[in-house]
Amino acid sequence: MTSSNNTNTSKFAALQSSFYNLRSNKAFELFVVAVIIFSALVIGAKTYELSSGLLRAIIILDWMVTFIFLFEIVIRFIGEPNKKRFFHNGWNVFDTLIVVVSLIPIDNSDMALIGRLVRIFRVLRMVSIIPELRVLLNSLLKALPQLGYVMLMMFIIFYIYAAIGATFFSEINQVLWGDIAISMLTLFRVMTFEDWTDVMYETMAVYPLSWMFYFSFICLTAFAFLNMVIGIVVSTLEEEHAQIAKKEAEESGEPTMLDLQNQIAELKALIEKR
Amino acid sequence: MTSSNNTNTSKFAALQSSFYNLRSNKAFELFVVAVIIFSALVIGAKTYELSSGLLRAIIILDWMVTFIFLFEIVIRFIGEPNKKRFFHNGWNVFDTLIVVVSLIPIDNSDMALIGRLVRIFRVLRMVSIIPELRVLLNSLLKALPQLGYVMLMMFIIFYIYAAIGATFFSEINQVLWGDIAISMLTLFRVMTFEDWTDVMYETMAVYPLSWMFYFSFICLTAFAFLNMVIGIVVSTLEEEHAQIAKKEAEESGEPTMLDLQNQIAELKALIEKR
Amino acid sequence: MTSSNNTNTSKFAALQSSFYNLRSNKAFELFVVAVIIFSALVIGAKTYELSSGLLRAIIILDWMVTFIFLFEIVIRFIGEPNKKRFFHNGWNVFDTLIVVVSLIPIDNSDMALIGRLVRIFRVLRMVSIIPELRVLLNSLLKALPQLGYVMLMMFIIFYIYAAIGATFFSEINQVLWGDIAISMLTLFRVMTFEDWTDVMYETMAVYPLSWMFYFSFICLTAFAFLNMVIGIVVSTLEEEHAQIAKKEAEESGEPTMLDLQNQIAELKALIEKR
Amino acid sequence: MTSSNNTNTSKFAALQSSFYNLRSNKAFELFVVAVIIFSALVIGAKTYELSSGLLRAIIILDWMVTFIFLFEIVIRFIGEPNKKRFFHNGWNVFDTLIVVVSLIPIDNSDMALIGRLVRIFRVLRMVSIIPELRVLLNSLLKALPQLGYVMLMMFIIFYIYAAIGATFFSEINQVLWGDIAISMLTLFRVMTFEDWTDVMYETMAVYPLSWMFYFSFICLTAFAFLNMVIGIVVSTLEEEHAQIAKKEAEESGEPTMLDLQNQIAELKALIEKR
Repeated sequence: MTSSNNTNTSKFAALQSSFYNLRSNKAFELFVVAVIIFSALVIGAKTYELSSGLLRAIIILDWMVTFIFLFEIVIRFIGEPNKKRFFHNGWNVFDTLIVVVSLIPIDNSDMALIGRLVRIFRVLRMVSIIPELRVLLNSLLKALPQLGYVMLMMFIIFYIYAAIGATFFSEINQVLWGDIAISMLTLFRVMTFEDWTDVMYETMAVYPLSWMFYFSFICLTAFAFLNMVIGIVVSTLEEEHAQIAKKEAEESGEPTMLDLQNQIAELKALIEKR
Repeated sequence: MTSSNNTNTSKFAALQSSFYNLRSNKAFELFVVAVIIFSALVIGAKTYELSSGLLRAIIILDWMVTFIFLFEIVIRFIGEPNKKRFFHNGWNVFDTLIVVVSLIPIDNSDMALIGRLVRIFRVLRMVSIIPELRVLLNSLLKALPQLGYVMLMMFIIFYIYAAIGATFFSEINQVLWGDIAISMLTLFRVMTFEDWTDVMYETMAVYPLSWMFYFSFICLTAFAFLNMVIGIVVSTLEEEHAQIAKKEAEESGEPTMLDLQNQIAELKALIEKR
Repeated sequence: MTSSNNTNTSKFAALQSSFYNLRSNKAFELFVVAVIIFSALVIGAKTYELSSGLLRAIIILDWMVTFIFLFEIVIRFIGEPNKKRFFHNGWNVFDTLIVVVSLIPIDNSDMALIGRLVRIFRVLRMVSIIPELRVLLNSLLKALPQLGYVMLMMFIIFYIYAAIGATFFSEINQVLWGDIAISMLTLFRVMTFEDWTDVMYETMAVYPLSWMFYFSFICLTAFAFLNMVIGIVVSTLEEEHAQIAKKEAEESGEPTMLDLQNQIAELKALIEKR
Repeated sequence: MTSSNNTNTSKFAALQSSFYNLRSNKAFELFVVAVIIFSALVIGAKTYELSSGLLRAIIILDWMVTFIFLFEIVIRFIGEPNKKRFFHNGWNVFDTLIVVVSLIPIDNSDMALIGRLVRIFRVLRMVSIIPELRVLLNSLLKALPQLGYVMLMMFIIFYIYAAIGATFFSEINQVLWGDIAISMLTLFRVMTFEDWTDVMYETMAVYPLSWMFYFSFICLTAFAFLNMVIGIVVSTLEEEHAQIAKKEAEESGEPTMLDLQNQIAELKALIEKR
């Protein structure tokens, strides 16, 4: 029994290492990218009006894509030497979720919507497959926490202005200033300059000084946004500079000031000794 | 009498130091932040249509918040060793004002508006409590004077264009160009690109060359704005660089050029002496 | 005669030097700024509907301002030691022109418009009087030639797209695409995102692929604009850095690498000589 | 025969060198620029309504321009010592294409459109003639590949949102969300803030939470765009800095740290030898 077990284990190890190789294979990767692009095209095609024949073909293609994805995940899971680490990677969890939800057969119309959404999010697998895009997304995500307090500040500004707006303007236009939530949406619209004067002229008919509300809001948010942008630019530049300086110092065979100082001290000792 | 006085003073000192500790207590701070958030939610809730029972509950909650704020201010005031310094801090003045105005009982409808506004501005206490937001706001305010002259320049540009607009276009559209104040508002609208072509086409029907007015205004303000932004970016970067350079020079044990020069001079003296 | 002439000359020299002092006097400068602000307020007041009494008062105030300005120019001209240099300064020419045109009595309605415009441009004297604004305007003007070729490039892009637009779309909407001039204005509108989809949907009804025209135009101009902005930022930063580096090198008593090298060479010569 | 051939070859060589000189002649270059500007004006003039006489004159001028361009290309081709290199230059290929297509006589109305377009693109020859513009365009083109992955990322964001939009909103508004292609155009419109609230309010009537779709899309694209801009600024600055550092190192006669180290080492050897 033990020997048979051993054989099984070694067989599995062989399988794992061959799957590990497959996973790192360039051709396999390209094939997966091709399937993702193909699945994206199928998703795009579904938005056009199609004959029932084409629709049936698309449903079949859809299932094919799902099974290829399932197959790929299984290969990657078996190929992973350390099973625990597999689910520590956010992208693996994302890929597995997408496949598992795709596999659930759906009849109910409410669930059908989620099924459709999941199929669309498959396009995001492009990001998980192409390393350069993954780097890009990570750098985008890395910049977010930096912005945390600025975004809290903006939320406070929005909340205060929305509370004022909902308090004073709700009788003027229920659709735009009905409650604090809808007021915040209206303020977001004002911030994007989208027909904000229509909103303003309406309230100015009742409160002639209400232009100060909009003017101060636009200036404040524009200024906060500017500050945010400059903050990111500055910190990005600093990081970049620090990295370059470090790299230069490492690459160049140039001695540091400290090296020179030590050499001069040595020289001094030499002269004094004589 | 004197001894009793002394006892009172020492009792007060003990109270003060215990209040001072309370004020700096993390749990107390978190409690105040929670009350502020709760008060913000109450303000938001008031903008929805509520049953009379809920409304009454909200009024009671509102008074509770007011009294907690009053209590907190009193604690902070008593806890402050130097009473004079307390009101030198703008945030303390702001907090006190908010609480005092909240305490005034209001019946008159005109005053009621101010009472409502004051309750909304309580949300700003979030900024006064969270140190990171206070730093952020201070940095925003610090950037303002830098912009002083650029803003004066922009005001002059606006004033001149508004005077031209009010002089020539007031007969075309009284609502947009009636007087110099309303013209400046219209120009702010043009600057945000908000339906500016509607404004332009109207005046072009009478003065076919008036597009030059709008075109030059947009270019000028865009250019001035750009200059302002770049000015802030550059000065922020310079400051940052200067700070980093200073910090590096302090941290690194590296000798300066001057140190090396002195060492070489010493060496020379040594050789000459022999 | 000669003696009397001499006396006249010396009298004139005394007058000149006293006017020169007056010109540089802080109080005189503040008085002129006050008159300019007052004249700006008069210009603003004229845009409101006024009673005939007020109108007459404003006309009188207007003449007063004109004569104060005339008086000030004369003082500055006499106070100038080198008469030729007076008109080399663009601001002096500007001030003189404003005053001279204000003095021409105008009856004709066409000329009246110019008279009104000149009075409005008096506000610009604020820039000529306040040194900080003059510096700001000069820095704005200095940045312009840098942009010369980018602006030529943008003009070529606009011209080509306007020619295409006027050729293909003029039958669809004569008002927007009638000829190449009006097409360029329409494209400027598209560039500012002002109701550009209305323009697009209209032409897409005839040429379904015309979205490519708008899409490529927006991308191209946004990209060119971006490049322009970055160009200015970079060159401004470079200049700033160069200035700082120069200042630091001058201020610090730190020796350069060359100084150190020379000292070491000296040391070597000293050792070899012995 | 051979001698006659030789004479021909030498004649041709003389012709070539004189054409080469002509090509580099400043006056000839200015003449070509003048013809291009003239041809641009003719193109502009054609967009106005013209009398039949003027139209005929313009057609003749058009042919004249075509022949001058043909003549110029021929001169440049003959003047080029290395014929193969002529077509390696993209601008030469572009110029030749423009001329060749202009020469094709067109009767068919479909082809007439292409003929007209080609005549408009002649204005682009301005870029190929003026070196500064060529440098500018090259720098624009050089920045494009850098943006490659960011643009792919944006395309993926657009595709996913367009797929969601076309799936859920196509029944609400067929014109805006009919299929995935038209949805992407609608999203581009939302990204430029062009009447995006009209689009949103329409879908919010059916799906009240659809504001999250627009809000997240705007934040995501704005953030990605910002990242892109900052990326270009940073890399442009780095390049610039690297170039300046290199230039400074070359220009300054200043020794490097390594030079100093070597000198000190020499000194040491000298002292030890004694």
